[in-house]
Amino acid sequence: MMDSVRPRTEELIAEKLDLERLLAAGGGNTFRVADLGCSIGPNTFHNVEHIVQQVRQKYNHMSSAPEFQVFFNDQVNNDFNALFRSLPPERDYFAAGVPGSFHTRVFPNSSLHLAYSASSAHWLSRVPPEVVDRGSPAWNRGMIHYGSAPKPVEDAYRAQFRKDMGGFLRARSEELVSGGMLVLVFPGLPDGMLHSETQAGSVIYCVNLSILDLVRQGVLEEDQLDNFNLPIYFPHPWEMRELVEENQCFSCIELEVVSPESTWLQQGGVGLRGWAVAMRAGMEELFARHFGGEEILDRIFDGASQKIAERAEVIMNTKCKELPLLYVALQRK
Amino acid sequence: MMDSVRPRTEELIAEKLDLERLLAAGGGNTFRVADLGCSIGPNTFHNVEHIVQQVRQKYNHMSSAPEFQVFFNDQVNNDFNALFRSLPPERDYFAAGVPGSFHTRVFPNSSLHLAYSASSAHWLSRVPPEVVDRGSPAWNRGMIHYGSAPKPVEDAYRAQFRKDMGGFLRARSEELVSGGMLVLVFPGLPDGMLHSETQAGSVIYCVNLSILDLVRQGVLEEDQLDNFNLPIYFPHPWEMRELVEENQCFSCIELEVVSPESTWLQQGGVGLRGWAVAMRAGMEELFARHFGGEEILDRIFDGASQKIAERAEVIMNTKCKELPLLYVALQRK
Repeated sequence: MMDSVRPRTEELIAEKLDLERLLAAGGGNTFRVADLGCSIGPNTFHNVEHIVQQVRQKYNHMSSAPEFQVFFNDQVNNDFNALFRSLPPERDYFAAGVPGSFHTRVFPNSSLHLAYSASSAHWLSRVPPEVVDRGSPAWNRGMIHYGSAPKPVEDAYRAQFRKDMGGFLRARSEELVSGGMLVLVFPGLPDGMLHSETQAGSVIYCVNLSILDLVRQGVLEEDQLDNFNLPIYFPHPWEMRELVEENQCFSCIELEVVSPESTWLQQGGVGLRGWAVAMRAGMEELFARHFGGEEILDRIFDGASQKIAERAEVIMNTKCKELPLLYVALQRK
Repeated sequence: MMDSVRPRTEELIAEKLDLERLLAAGGGNTFRVADLGCSIGPNTFHNVEHIVQQVRQKYNHMSSAPEFQVFFNDQVNNDFNALFRSLPPERDYFAAGVPGSFHTRVFPNSSLHLAYSASSAHWLSRVPPEVVDRGSPAWNRGMIHYGSAPKPVEDAYRAQFRKDMGGFLRARSEELVSGGMLVLVFPGLPDGMLHSETQAGSVIYCVNLSILDLVRQGVLEEDQLDNFNLPIYFPHPWEMRELVEENQCFSCIELEVVSPESTWLQQGGVGLRGWAVAMRAGMEELFARHFGGEEILDRIFDGASQKIAERAEVIMNTKCKELPLLYVALQRK
């Protein structure tokens, strides 16, 4: 959990979680938590411990304390060995790993009391097929994302997100007990803002420009660029709201953009380069699988850093100076 | 599950499993199965599928079918990545991995309906400390197991097994719902038989002799041999019965020695060497961690194969010609 949203989650658990209703809805005396898209830690351990601690506190005034079972979920190719080996030895919950895509069912019916997902729900299950289809008006020639691309590309991304988040909500509505909570925190955009108007959008654009340079220099093939697109989408609140309403199974408790201050921004133009480093860290595997090894990645991201430096002043003055996050808290009806 | 005990488990599920009582005891409409000491597959998948299929069949006449959640448990250093990546794609259960020693609690209270363990419960949590203590009458000098060792060594092994299996049963009695089943299949000995009277005992002894040769040749240090002991114990039915009675939480449904025919035995003396190969496969990591790499392991097990060949006739005529297994089926009161 990004630290900045902790107080929100604390408040949510304190005020909205109805323990008696939850445990009556199933699970005996076990409170089941899932972290969806947990990666390998340590962030997931901090998030989970915070949640368990808050729920446990709430039980203090009740006659019997529950036991906690925490399910760490991520794709089957996640490094669960690393995750398991770094589990906090003094944890006060029973841990389990659950491999599989959170866009589909990964838990039994009515088996979870609280599902949480941090920095993961913006990942799509795949690149929208139209954007790599030369015959489609959404073909994203020369670009790696929708931010600075023509409208049909953005539409294709949005359609894929609708499909994926629709599946995500459907799966969770089946897995959560009545009264159970779903909390999502992930990058999004304020209503009315374009992706290209954010610093994240500018940084992705700089990476794109760097790859274009390498194509021009003959280091990469044009096809390699055309066939590569980032499978991430930053939705607006209205899009999430629409999907929650269509799903019909959840009451919306919170759905808004929160804007923790970008620490890179505070550091000015030099700090901005941190974006490229962070982006590489988060997406290294994705880039490496498509473009090849360490050396070519160095060239892509060194080039991007340079582009960022060149444009620092413009980027610093983009409309959206923060790192906007969507905070979504839903309660299963 | 060794194929030979499948019919027993089928009978057990068909006759002794009280589904309505089980699901009433907790878990909503989810039937939870655990495989304790699952390793990396594929055996665990076969065992688990067989169990799920049998329980599902039994539900056929009921109005609503449950969903199944299967927990694959093993030590934290088990290769869960390999396990998860080889999960059958067409499985009809939700899978989870649970890292941790089955000698302690790894699941919430009353959360399992059926716990199963194949070929794992004979592993001790550690080598009994006395057998590597030079000051103890149980010091197991020059030997790697209790089979051909003085009585105090066997006593130390038995005490460790009592402690470990006591912990195992205590943990399961807390984790299983009332009416839940615990099924264990693992190597054991018929009452009254000594470990040294079995072919397994003879084979371990041959490995021991091979290591002794390497010590004599100066390839290994005497200390290396003295500090190495196999952390496995083959209990008799009376020992298991005593532990189940002391635990008090289980009704004993079956507790007996079953003797599938050794396929190695059928192949005569040449087939006997298969023992050394199988033992190496099962314990390679254990030996490698203590004695070093591939090369020294080759020498240990090549030597053992030769010893086995030299003694083939004697080994073929040991008292116990089969590969005895303990089959233990308990029901949580």
